[in-house]
Amino acid sequence: MKFDKINISDKFGKLPAGDYAVRLIAKMNNYDIKIVKFKGDFIWHSHAETDETFIIVDGVLVMNFRDRTEEVHAGEMIVIPKGVEHKPSSTDGYKAILIEPEGVPNTGNVKNEITIEKFEWV
Amino acid sequence: MKFDKINISDKFGKLPAGDYAVRLIAKMNNYDIKIVKFKGDFIWHSHAETDETFIIVDGVLVMNFRDRTEEVHAGEMIVIPKGVEHKPSSTDGYKAILIEPEGVPNTGNVKNEITIEKFEWV
Repeated sequence: MKFDKINISDKFGKLPAGDYAVRLIAKMNNYDIKIVKFKGDFIWHSHAETDETFIIVDGVLVMNFRDRTEEVHAGEMIVIPKGVEHKPSSTDGYKAILIEPEGVPNTGNVKNEITIEKFEWV
Repeated sequence: MKFDKINISDKFGKLPAGDYAVRLIAKMNNYDIKIVKFKGDFIWHSHAETDETFIIVDGVLVMNFRDRTEEVHAGEMIVIPKGVEHKPSSTDGYKAILIEPEGVPNTGNVKNEITIEKFEWV
């Protein structure tokens, strides 16, 4: 059923191996609730039409902005305002819940080989 | 700044004493990101216009529906679909992140002495 409860760590356990994966776990109105794991250096990008929320559940997300850096640890969250360039990085990896409207590509204004426009469920 | 990181347990530490409190901690587009603590038996209500997301960070939320009950533990989440009657309960208390559009009153279709229509920040 749509409104069964969701165990978040069980969902992380179902992600494929590797340094990067993002999957849908729920919908709220026209918003996607996704989980993401990432290790490495992402690309600079921005989302022209929407804010983007990261709730960190494990590890440390280093969120680079053009003028500063925020280290976001497990138990912390950050909302990236629309239009603001950012580059997520993580030396040892992080896991997060990601909330944004449906259909927002992971690489925002940039299109390249890691761009995802249609997310899979887990 | 709007996009500083937010420490969620620090925010819970700033809630007033008592069995029930709900406060804004962030905005994402026209959505509110709130924290809530609750112990006891809430009222039956529904939200005609919107889904509502609970991400449990401590304790157990017993979410009663007219035909069943879901026990949602720390590390789990649930999306209540719009229009679905529900009654949150918790014997020992729970803490959660709550996500829904701006201006959604806590008691939905019911107006009474615990109704909040304008939420304070913490």
